[in-house]
Amino acid sequence: MGQSYFSEGMAHEATFSLYMRDYPPDRGYMVAAGIDDTLDCLNALAFDPTNIDYLRTTGIFTGDFLEFLAATRFTGSVRAVPEGSVVFADAPIMEISAPIIEAQLVETIVINQIQYQTLLATKSARCVLAAQGRAIADFASRRTHGTEAALAMARASYIAGFAATSNVLAARRYEIPPAGTMAHSYITGFSSEIEAFRAYARMFPARSIFLLDTYDTISGARNAALVAGEMEDAGHRLTAVRLDSGDLDHLSRQVRSILDEANLGYVRILASGGLDEYEIERLVNNGAPIDMFGVGTRVGVSGDAPWCDMVYKMVCYDDRPVMKLSGGKESMPGSKQIFRHFDSSGLMTGDVIALAYENIAPGRPLLAEAMTNGQRISPRENLAVVRQRVAEGAAGLSPPYQRLREPARYPVEFSSTIQELTQHTREQLVASINT
Amino acid sequence: MGQSYFSEGMAHEATFSLYMRDYPPDRGYMVAAGIDDTLDCLNALAFDPTNIDYLRTTGIFTGDFLEFLAATRFTGSVRAVPEGSVVFADAPIMEISAPIIEAQLVETIVINQIQYQTLLATKSARCVLAAQGRAIADFASRRTHGTEAALAMARASYIAGFAATSNVLAARRYEIPPAGTMAHSYITGFSSEIEAFRAYARMFPARSIFLLDTYDTISGARNAALVAGEMEDAGHRLTAVRLDSGDLDHLSRQVRSILDEANLGYVRILASGGLDEYEIERLVNNGAPIDMFGVGTRVGVSGDAPWCDMVYKMVCYDDRPVMKLSGGKESMPGSKQIFRHFDSSGLMTGDVIALAYENIAPGRPLLAEAMTNGQRISPRENLAVVRQRVAEGAAGLSPPYQRLREPARYPVEFSSTIQELTQHTREQLVASINT
Repeated sequence: MGQSYFSEGMAHEATFSLYMRDYPPDRGYMVAAGIDDTLDCLNALAFDPTNIDYLRTTGIFTGDFLEFLAATRFTGSVRAVPEGSVVFADAPIMEISAPIIEAQLVETIVINQIQYQTLLATKSARCVLAAQGRAIADFASRRTHGTEAALAMARASYIAGFAATSNVLAARRYEIPPAGTMAHSYITGFSSEIEAFRAYARMFPARSIFLLDTYDTISGARNAALVAGEMEDAGHRLTAVRLDSGDLDHLSRQVRSILDEANLGYVRILASGGLDEYEIERLVNNGAPIDMFGVGTRVGVSGDAPWCDMVYKMVCYDDRPVMKLSGGKESMPGSKQIFRHFDSSGLMTGDVIALAYENIAPGRPLLAEAMTNGQRISPRENLAVVRQRVAEGAAGLSPPYQRLREPARYPVEFSSTIQELTQHTREQLVASINT
Repeated sequence: MGQSYFSEGMAHEATFSLYMRDYPPDRGYMVAAGIDDTLDCLNALAFDPTNIDYLRTTGIFTGDFLEFLAATRFTGSVRAVPEGSVVFADAPIMEISAPIIEAQLVETIVINQIQYQTLLATKSARCVLAAQGRAIADFASRRTHGTEAALAMARASYIAGFAATSNVLAARRYEIPPAGTMAHSYITGFSSEIEAFRAYARMFPARSIFLLDTYDTISGARNAALVAGEMEDAGHRLTAVRLDSGDLDHLSRQVRSILDEANLGYVRILASGGLDEYEIERLVNNGAPIDMFGVGTRVGVSGDAPWCDMVYKMVCYDDRPVMKLSGGKESMPGSKQIFRHFDSSGLMTGDVIALAYENIAPGRPLLAEAMTNGQRISPRENLAVVRQRVAEGAAGLSPPYQRLREPARYPVEFSSTIQELTQHTREQLVASINT
């Protein structure tokens, strides 16, 4: 496409809009993430000489286009919702305006980064809501789709409200509290479970979490209570025990009893093993005495919604509004803005999507300038700021929109101006097709 | 765990086994992938000084352990099935023997790389079987979980038999044929669809694929036929047209008719848009006149099975067989070998999992030495070799195991020796728990 635009002399500015066409199953809102990484990618756009050489070997491109590509950098402007914003279907998360070749070249990376990071932040935010204040740690690195995704999961889940991550590189890079417990292999490496517990307590008298289910959760709890008593004799306190298999609701009650009968009321219970927001909600609603959750696989791959229908569509070229009409996949023309409305208590009541130049009072505009002339307007925000934004966004959702299953559909409307522009553009296109 | 092993003086050799506990839904076999990348990761194991400094700031570790970590490299040995092997549940894909701290440190990266690459290679191989000889191109980069996953998907799908990828970096890195078509934005950038087709044909007279559904697939097909006629007048031939939305079965027949009536029998039809192995099978079985498929999202995230229960369990420590007993998650002790059996026509008839020192004639052993003393035994194989291995593996599966829905369960048995060792180890553990 770039080669053809180049040869046709098409160098005008194009505006592309990134948005989600519809929700994945059981989603009523999304937490936008990946925007910061995308801006960094746009900043870094460049074809190094070895890549230009490779493209030359394909025989597809002209020499003057490859020279053009070698000099290409991203020079456009970007408007985006801030990282961690609560967003809805149809509403633009990011709009990019740039010479058409630049804007087209970045399509894949823009969708790639924002789609999956948004899925992970959303899934994590749902877990946080379900946990009703209990701490959650990210244990997903083993089963994310690669190491880049493991880092992104640690970051996305932290901005969504998780307390810690087991990914130590992510902990370092993003300043997230690192968290780790022992694996079953640790226990099996010792001659017996109780010797493994004792060794761990010797090393980490102030931060021990004993894994109970290597052989049998109940006998593991008894061993843990025994070693916790030995720790007390030495002036220490066992931090927690961890359940990782079986009926977590039932086992947590049995383990709580064993601990309480041993006067170990301060020892907390961490549950893990196949957890997601649905299971966390069930355990919490049942009153299972679980103090902390460790979540992994199902959240780290957004298991029930591993993709969403996020698209990047051209809405304007050379000041001409454009759209596609494909059945069921029609886009709306024009550069846009989201105006969000709130009630007097601060709850969100609805979004209006309007053309960028409109002002839909008293709605609060969400898309803000993020890059101008290829330069970021402000550096990456501190993750604490983003985390706060997610928390405020989630607090602004009334319960029907927060529901994990079949949430109510949040009202998203289009301004009359944008509807008229769409209608007009569609009619012109249909007329041109039929002549 | 490493700190505790270190402080306890536990430095003996441990053997860990990587295997899948059970199949994801509707899977009857898996195509092992990610082994080559994992071996590279093991080779690269090292903690650079900045990471040691970070670990020191956590206050969790002793100075002598951090010194030990700074000098740690992977010195162990690895046995693995060759990249691209067809594998089944319960059977080890890789076994790592190394000083326990090394073997434990690599757990996350080993599972991370092999789990998702195996899922992607498996999903892709299912598409190849469903397409019955029709070419498939990887269009998944937009919706994989990150860019690392996009490259891995291009590679995994190529070894599984795909013909090309739209990921140009992957094409360069792995020597995969690059493939691309136009996007809807390309069409909307021109004053009309037919002008867009003409511009593309001017640039790429020998490699044009026209996207038909930007406005209306049928009128798009008529425009394509018109421009294909103009191309013929100039001595060129349109390569193909692409359908990307709507009822692909119905539309492909209508478009085929329009092309054939214009004497364009040589113009092929490429279908894309939400495809996976189930939809490809349906279209092929219905006789839809589709010559090539482009697959993206659903395959690139292994949509119906975005994770599997692949685990890395210690099976031996200091020559002592070990296992965990956790309910429903019991592991089997001892270093293992897979012996695969075939019938006289070359079809696979069953695998026997035995201890590594056994010989289950006439079974063919699958795990081979891949690293010794921390060094790879042989360099990465050429992808063509791996691709051939996948094709031969798939050809060795009789139809009941190939079924996309509810495949027959391939026979995997355990040798009597391994069953006895498991029983004996379990009894010893249970006895130690109950005393």
